[in-house]
Amino acid sequence: MDIYMQSAIEEAKKGLAEGGIPIGSLLVHKGIILERGHNRRVQKGSSILHGEMDALENAGRQSAQVYRESVLYTTLSPCSMCSGAILLYGIPRVVIGENSTFMGDEELLRSRGVHVDVLQDQECVAMMRAYIKEKPALWNEDIGV
Amino acid sequence: MDIYMQSAIEEAKKGLAEGGIPIGSLLVHKGIILERGHNRRVQKGSSILHGEMDALENAGRQSAQVYRESVLYTTLSPCSMCSGAILLYGIPRVVIGENSTFMGDEELLRSRGVHVDVLQDQECVAMMRAYIKEKPALWNEDIGV
Repeated sequence: MDIYMQSAIEEAKKGLAEGGIPIGSLLVHKGIILERGHNRRVQKGSSILHGEMDALENAGRQSAQVYRESVLYTTLSPCSMCSGAILLYGIPRVVIGENSTFMGDEELLRSRGVHVDVLQDQECVAMMRAYIKEKPALWNEDIGV
Repeated sequence: MDIYMQSAIEEAKKGLAEGGIPIGSLLVHKGIILERGHNRRVQKGSSILHGEMDALENAGRQSAQVYRESVLYTTLSPCSMCSGAILLYGIPRVVIGENSTFMGDEELLRSRGVHVDVLQDQECVAMMRAYIKEKPALWNEDIGV
């Protein structure tokens, strides 16, 4: 098991325990976890704090150089907003837990030269599948449906 | 002068007065200003609060229906992150103050069916031109350069 994805899953579980949507993310620079984040729609009444955005926000203001040497880990395929943030900062690689419950804008990322790996991790799949079944309205809100 | 763009410019000036980057934005629903926002990179040490993101965040959790009936006003062409947020929520129209000091991801927006209007407002141009000249490093940080 990828140790970074394991940490991202822990972040997702932290979000779930807070009553939130279970999606976690990490920004990793040269093997070091710079910051962690998880979806905070429910916790903060936020429309922009997806897991990936929360990790970027928690990491604060970094130089372009740092982003360009970093990898973003996320338990779920990144939506258009999070994909756009990855492009803005020129993050060259994204590792995705799964894209079977939701397919984000991976094609856009790839078309702009981002290296995208999808682990199709069964723990990530099971976590999202259970959440979507339990709270479909909240999930739809999170993806603008 | 477009009254909404005038309000977005006021937001940009508010940001400048706070020591921030002068970019303002509004989310307008059926002619009513739902919320306003401005870039808060400096003010909040934020890597994600571009003007458009701040307006969306300030507007809180809205239904998909509301976003789909809304127009986003922004004093500057929206970067990849903000364009991605517009796509996530299916906002059908974006009105841009200017794109001569920075060209965002307008082509992506258009390719996904978003109606994009560019006013090329001279006050917006002058405001950004002066800021970029005065604080080039901060500006570059904001666009991941």
